[in-house]
Amino acid sequence: MQSFEQLLQAFNASFEKEHFPAQPASLYQPAQYFLSIGGKRVRPVSVLMGNELFDEIAPDSWQVATAIELFHNFTLIHDDIMDKAPLRRGMETVHSRYGEPTALLAGDVMLVVAYDYLNKVHSPHLQKLIRIFNDTAKAVCEGQQLDMDFEKQPTVSMADYLHMITLKTSVLLAASLQMGAVLGGASEGNQQHIYAFGKNLGIAFQVQDDYLDAFGDPQKFGKQVGGDILANKKTFLLIKALETASAADGARLQELLHTQPADKVAQVLAIYRRAGVDEWARTLKAEYDAKALQHLEAIAVVNRRKAPLQELAAFLLQREY
Amino acid sequence: MQSFEQLLQAFNASFEKEHFPAQPASLYQPAQYFLSIGGKRVRPVSVLMGNELFDEIAPDSWQVATAIELFHNFTLIHDDIMDKAPLRRGMETVHSRYGEPTALLAGDVMLVVAYDYLNKVHSPHLQKLIRIFNDTAKAVCEGQQLDMDFEKQPTVSMADYLHMITLKTSVLLAASLQMGAVLGGASEGNQQHIYAFGKNLGIAFQVQDDYLDAFGDPQKFGKQVGGDILANKKTFLLIKALETASAADGARLQELLHTQPADKVAQVLAIYRRAGVDEWARTLKAEYDAKALQHLEAIAVVNRRKAPLQELAAFLLQREY
Repeated sequence: MQSFEQLLQAFNASFEKEHFPAQPASLYQPAQYFLSIGGKRVRPVSVLMGNELFDEIAPDSWQVATAIELFHNFTLIHDDIMDKAPLRRGMETVHSRYGEPTALLAGDVMLVVAYDYLNKVHSPHLQKLIRIFNDTAKAVCEGQQLDMDFEKQPTVSMADYLHMITLKTSVLLAASLQMGAVLGGASEGNQQHIYAFGKNLGIAFQVQDDYLDAFGDPQKFGKQVGGDILANKKTFLLIKALETASAADGARLQELLHTQPADKVAQVLAIYRRAGVDEWARTLKAEYDAKALQHLEAIAVVNRRKAPLQELAAFLLQREY
Repeated sequence: MQSFEQLLQAFNASFEKEHFPAQPASLYQPAQYFLSIGGKRVRPVSVLMGNELFDEIAPDSWQVATAIELFHNFTLIHDDIMDKAPLRRGMETVHSRYGEPTALLAGDVMLVVAYDYLNKVHSPHLQKLIRIFNDTAKAVCEGQQLDMDFEKQPTVSMADYLHMITLKTSVLLAASLQMGAVLGGASEGNQQHIYAFGKNLGIAFQVQDDYLDAFGDPQKFGKQVGGDILANKKTFLLIKALETASAADGARLQELLHTQPADKVAQVLAIYRRAGVDEWARTLKAEYDAKALQHLEAIAVVNRRKAPLQELAAFLLQREY
């Protein structure tokens, strides 16, 4: 059994190569540029971990892991166009560096190359793997569309927000683990458990992300605290606060969503605290974390094989052991 | 053996359904809207014809034909964004009707659904079919990028232009026929011949398209004659004229590319005629047409099975028999 760190190093070594033909460089160089920006590579490593939970890592898993990482990067390139984001990880986005038409095409071709890697699999489960991949890809597109829709709506219900965030961010982690499990020869029941582990872990991570953006230690969090508040972004916290704040605080919060006073972040945080949204978010994260671990627990393999996935959950959710 | 018209009717009947889930409608309704605009459906029918050249049409062919048509529509949605085109076939493009972010995503999800159809195939040749599909998809993206690159360059060589147009418009027709042939159990050699038939036919069609835009009968052609000239679009004709016109005409042509006099179309056409570009284009089209038919001839099946493909070539190239 290998740890997340060990598998990450191995994946990075295998991923660090040219994934595209040399010509036309005007198309493929922008695609390769974006991959060079780097990333946490949590999803491809999850493929390997999903496989190793059940059996030795099959050669096919490296192809699937690469396909998953290319798919993820395709979505980021296109999301950046849609969000008109100038930077990602402090580097220029593809469209700000090469223009929107090229960024659009570089994303398209990256998705096709993802399918190329998937199609290299020798597993008799190829069609099932493609089906999981396609279902996930559609879900991610749906999540992105719902996210854009919600930003235009005055209010969004918690159920709708949770559905959106699940599609946009959790199903890809879940599917990565499941695809690894398929290659590891897992039963359908065990596949469903590892999928549910990934889905709940993804949601817990997103709750934490929203929480840290508002209440995190700026030094540890590594980015500006209150960014979501300044951008009036719909988050778990904002939606909950709009549901539960007192009448006066609710009205004040609505007003703050349409103005940018100098102390906006402090004012919104005070409302969040009075509504108990900070405590609520910590509890919600713990609930999804617990659900994830229950599903991991339910998987019918010996406990020591599960250690790397327990560590992954701890790493992502910054729990103390 | 069925004619193009018969297969077109059958394909249209099978294609006329919802290809997407109902929700979220904000994503899938724009995708379905674009399909409702219609099209010539030459590529999916070519899948069926490529199959029937060798054997009875396999059920798998309908899935592949649908995948090809969805792929083609995905490229059109994204091309329209890149070209900032307001209309297609007289109807609003997806991005002018629903905004660029939604058009981008609707294209993305349409490509994924194309892979869904491809993945429904029961053929033992699934991986080969996906490989042909992927190689073609990459080529089409490359062609679109080169097309955008060339529009920014002052001059383009005929060889480069031919390479671009082959990628952008011919390989999809060629691959459609080949994928049908794979499903019809064709040998590798026969697959290569039908691929070459489609590729040369596609180039001949593109030469004709450029020719008709300049020299066509506006009534028969169905669109404004001289549109390419007014848009300074690089075409077979313009590139050849820049290569072969007299020094004086070449200089005048360069000047016309940077101005829009009222009689621009007439002036450019006069230069084209003096350079003999009209006659040259008719000959070039005939050469590619002949090459296409030689490859069709070389396919090792009885002649009467080839009649529908001969008719398709005649239909696309408006030859008289």
